[in-house]
Amino acid sequence: MELLQTIAAVRNYVAAARQRGLSIGLVPTMGYLHEGHLSLARAARQQNDVVIMSIFVNPTQFGPNEDFARYPRDLERDRELAAGAGVDAVFAPAVEEMYPAGYATYVQVEGLTEVLCGASRPGHFRGVTTVVSKLFNIVQPDRAYFGQKDYQQALVIKRMVRDLNFPIEIITIPTVREADGLALSSRNKYLTPEQRRSALSLHRALNLGSDLIKAGEREAAVVRRAMEKEITAWPETRIDYVAISDADTLKPLEKIAGRVLLALAVWVGNTRLIDNVVLEVND
Amino acid sequence: MELLQTIAAVRNYVAAARQRGLSIGLVPTMGYLHEGHLSLARAARQQNDVVIMSIFVNPTQFGPNEDFARYPRDLERDRELAAGAGVDAVFAPAVEEMYPAGYATYVQVEGLTEVLCGASRPGHFRGVTTVVSKLFNIVQPDRAYFGQKDYQQALVIKRMVRDLNFPIEIITIPTVREADGLALSSRNKYLTPEQRRSALSLHRALNLGSDLIKAGEREAAVVRRAMEKEITAWPETRIDYVAISDADTLKPLEKIAGRVLLALAVWVGNTRLIDNVVLEVND
Repeated sequence: MELLQTIAAVRNYVAAARQRGLSIGLVPTMGYLHEGHLSLARAARQQNDVVIMSIFVNPTQFGPNEDFARYPRDLERDRELAAGAGVDAVFAPAVEEMYPAGYATYVQVEGLTEVLCGASRPGHFRGVTTVVSKLFNIVQPDRAYFGQKDYQQALVIKRMVRDLNFPIEIITIPTVREADGLALSSRNKYLTPEQRRSALSLHRALNLGSDLIKAGEREAAVVRRAMEKEITAWPETRIDYVAISDADTLKPLEKIAGRVLLALAVWVGNTRLIDNVVLEVND
Repeated sequence: MELLQTIAAVRNYVAAARQRGLSIGLVPTMGYLHEGHLSLARAARQQNDVVIMSIFVNPTQFGPNEDFARYPRDLERDRELAAGAGVDAVFAPAVEEMYPAGYATYVQVEGLTEVLCGASRPGHFRGVTTVVSKLFNIVQPDRAYFGQKDYQQALVIKRMVRDLNFPIEIITIPTVREADGLALSSRNKYLTPEQRRSALSLHRALNLGSDLIKAGEREAAVVRRAMEKEITAWPETRIDYVAISDADTLKPLEKIAGRVLLALAVWVGNTRLIDNVVLEVND
């Protein structure tokens, strides 16, 4: 497997693949890989001739008081895992390679980015869409892969791709979970054993909400309150948001109908975790 | 010459050219073509196998009280002129093709866009960089051509291309002028005969400023005042800005040195005209 550390090296690698008529799949990550990332890589492996994974902890998507500095990094381990999942080349640039002195350009999706995680993390999605635009222009893939766990991120990127006419297909892959239901996240590493137990409250609350809706509850406020109670019953939890929203527009729902997103962000100790589920409610 | 009116038609046209290994030059315009645009097209003709010109009066780069609605349009004439300059295909989309319902994504260059025309026309450059990003992703040219008359625009686009890693070479072409020095502009059409005479004040002021600097004047305030006097001596003129700036950063200069931009925007009646010149001052 190739390790590429400069934009020029990626351009050369991609140009050689293109000259041979090969299709290219891109898996953008911040590294510290887990099975969620690897499921993206395996999907890319099946659908493309060449698979490139980017590993870059992107500073522009972290707020000033967030965990950019302490975000877990382990490039050696990531390279082995990526190779095992069929990745052909890892692009792992330095921050200065992506954001040289004088950097000044940002890509912004309006509307969709102002709710849920966007409300709690101002500027976060602007950083995401900016770095993803750069990766798209550097790699020029046929397809790019994103996890459903970051539902809003995937929706924002699809909107950006449609609006800015990137000639790229965006493919989303279901959330990968531990046996007990906890969604995989590089940030799970931050949790103490006790916090790890409390982190289950996210999955439990989503299950509870889904069950209530399947049982016929259509009042979003009722479902949301039940979910909030489930979360706050666990030690060290603090709710950032519990949202019941239209899955396409992310607008909050009062009456539950159509494609519905249950999404939540919860602080467990000093770690902010997110999870979501999408339901089809047709009655 | 081909007339393409949809994004899908451009993608097909470009894919066919790419399959034959042909290079592509893009000339983005708002139409109502004059010799300035045609000089861009001729440069593109010399340097590329295929030349595509876009003709699109882009609503997102006009302010709410600006001349979007009355901006001159004449597609039939433009097609003839483009064909005569060696353009292979004109892309002339409807507004709804470029900005369908729910459109929400914008590209923004900070810093460079906050001075000169950016200060007078808030949001203007955001509209420019957004539509140019779209055109770049639709056409995927090897090279794109912009006029030096819109100096700040070309600088902003170069910054965007570098920052977002568009694999495109930006080529700027010198301003084309009437015999008496007036820079060509589609907006010159708005001028009455008397205003047409006053419009010469821009070129005159730039010449005066250049001459003062060549004669040894190094105080920007002195040169600027002389230029302002020249402009206001003509009927119906109103200065938007007269700037003496670093040609790379657009920061205002006090002492004139290095690569220096003399730039101005002047209202002549209800028409806002711009012009500029770049000098090398090494002493």
